[in-house]
Amino acid sequence: MRVYNFSAGPSMLFEDVLKEAQSSFLDYEGSGMSVTEMSHRAKVYDGIHTECLALFTELMKVPEDYQVLLLQGGASQQFDAIPLNLLTNGKADYVVTGNFANLAYKQAKKYGDIRLAASSEDKTYTYIPKVTKDSFRKDASYVHITSNNTIFGTRWKEFPETDAPLVADVSSEILSREIDVSKFGLLYAGAQKNISAAGLTVVIVRKDLIGHELPICPTMLAYKTQADKNSLYNTPPAFSIYIAMLTLRHLKKMGGISAINKINEEKAALLYDFIDNSTLFKNYVNKEDRSIMNVPFVTGSEELDAKFVKEAAANGLVSIKGHRLVGGMRASIYNAMPVEGVKKLIEFMKKFELENK
Amino acid sequence: MRVYNFSAGPSMLFEDVLKEAQSSFLDYEGSGMSVTEMSHRAKVYDGIHTECLALFTELMKVPEDYQVLLLQGGASQQFDAIPLNLLTNGKADYVVTGNFANLAYKQAKKYGDIRLAASSEDKTYTYIPKVTKDSFRKDASYVHITSNNTIFGTRWKEFPETDAPLVADVSSEILSREIDVSKFGLLYAGAQKNISAAGLTVVIVRKDLIGHELPICPTMLAYKTQADKNSLYNTPPAFSIYIAMLTLRHLKKMGGISAINKINEEKAALLYDFIDNSTLFKNYVNKEDRSIMNVPFVTGSEELDAKFVKEAAANGLVSIKGHRLVGGMRASIYNAMPVEGVKKLIEFMKKFELENK
Repeated sequence: MRVYNFSAGPSMLFEDVLKEAQSSFLDYEGSGMSVTEMSHRAKVYDGIHTECLALFTELMKVPEDYQVLLLQGGASQQFDAIPLNLLTNGKADYVVTGNFANLAYKQAKKYGDIRLAASSEDKTYTYIPKVTKDSFRKDASYVHITSNNTIFGTRWKEFPETDAPLVADVSSEILSREIDVSKFGLLYAGAQKNISAAGLTVVIVRKDLIGHELPICPTMLAYKTQADKNSLYNTPPAFSIYIAMLTLRHLKKMGGISAINKINEEKAALLYDFIDNSTLFKNYVNKEDRSIMNVPFVTGSEELDAKFVKEAAANGLVSIKGHRLVGGMRASIYNAMPVEGVKKLIEFMKKFELENK
Repeated sequence: MRVYNFSAGPSMLFEDVLKEAQSSFLDYEGSGMSVTEMSHRAKVYDGIHTECLALFTELMKVPEDYQVLLLQGGASQQFDAIPLNLLTNGKADYVVTGNFANLAYKQAKKYGDIRLAASSEDKTYTYIPKVTKDSFRKDASYVHITSNNTIFGTRWKEFPETDAPLVADVSSEILSREIDVSKFGLLYAGAQKNISAAGLTVVIVRKDLIGHELPICPTMLAYKTQADKNSLYNTPPAFSIYIAMLTLRHLKKMGGISAINKINEEKAALLYDFIDNSTLFKNYVNKEDRSIMNVPFVTGSEELDAKFVKEAAANGLVSIKGHRLVGGMRASIYNAMPVEGVKKLIEFMKKFELENK
């Protein structure tokens, strides 16, 4: 029996996607081989690669002056790749709204003058700081934000205005809502939340920002390396790219990103409404900054939290334990979590609340 | 119908491995989820990760003072990671025996005094240069070789003696023959030939070489980052690690590396014997330096080569076209290519030879 998996990532994939990948696992479209066995120079693989890139471009409405790159190493690798590629005048501004935003900020520091423009650390990252154009240096090479904070459950509902190119880690919300790519210099995301199996990192970068990497930039971290070769400079993570293609096909059939966004808003509203009316569960995030992907909540008692996590798992609601930095619980309700899963969770929370008053 | 896939990589996987991955694709061992969906912090994934590392250690007889790392980015990323981690006194010596060896050499150059100690470029990389301890600088931080040259079909049958730690790219021969790990400072391999699906890179490094990375080394390229976290610093390429685990289990059941090596020697002998006695097909590699993994051959006519590749594919012998740098054909006969596949290829070559005299 399949469970409802509330993991922050890797996390649920659409069941249709999994079923299709399973059925073709030993013989993809009459090729006589698995996608896991294909030469990345073969025509049959090229079909997958090309369709995956085309669907990203179509669904995210990526403008012509941007390029989609299919990379490896996770968002963590981009924390270095971004300054190595974009820090052309040695200065960048960061907004720190959580753990990963902080890592991005710290990792960038070894390459130049990296400034903390704003932070929400003072209230344990439970809100998104208010910023204006003046919060950032006019001559910064770029401004970096983390658009959705997986651990703390916040998100930038509106994105900041900046003079410098805006760079955003969208790992935990890519494909979940419409994002105007043209407002950004660069967007990046690990695939293991809303796109595919782990091992793929997607970068969407404005073309004029490619090719200015620092002399010390490793070849595989320079965007130009993969941009010039259509992300086939070396062997790509082909199976993750295949699962991404199937996921994008599935999203397209559902009506694209605006359609899945409606469902995501509905799921989040159901869960937050229940929590806000509960006498047991609490969410401490500033209401207007709440993530619709990651919903942290606590009972106020560590013992009760642990009991909840254990009993939820026994009821097929798994990986709901909160991150060690915040404790409690966290329901990650990415694109592939069905409404039904959220309803089951709320039912269980109701029951738990009654039993543990 | 499954084909015989002679691709240089990604390439064939054991059919038993694929079947097992397929059967558990929607529900791994009663977890209610696919391996592609599992949190890398979950107990069920930890079982896979731990077993994969343990089997590498067991089958390759990795000594205690070495650590196995499960990374991303391919061997190409290691071409930078190696100097960034090991170039402690600014000098390293490289032997260039092919295209990838040359890329490793060139990419290292941006970090220090990188010397070409020997090369076989003069004869289009058809041999392995003779080297002695004196070929290398005594105070080099390390000496780099490519143990098997995928494109040109050569290999180091015996490894060179060096004062400095020996570093080898073993991408296209790892797990195919017994290698004495203790003779090396570091071994590395992309997974997509003999280990797993693309997206995983294995590094086996002597522990005392970890932690001396240059200050400009990106966090994700520093071995210490993943060594300290048992290769779980960030989300690992979990599905490729799972396929690696299944492949290693399969090899263990077959009798380990010495057993598969016997089969590999047999497959290679069959093919080289046929080529050496053919009046049509030729292999130009120095006999004692021939790879048992990649067997390039030509007819001497580009037209006939193209005809061969096309007709072979129609007969279920696919991806046999040679690399553009050498032309002709190349049969990559990695661990998962059955003896039967090589016999079918030889049969077809015989027939083709008769028909095209």
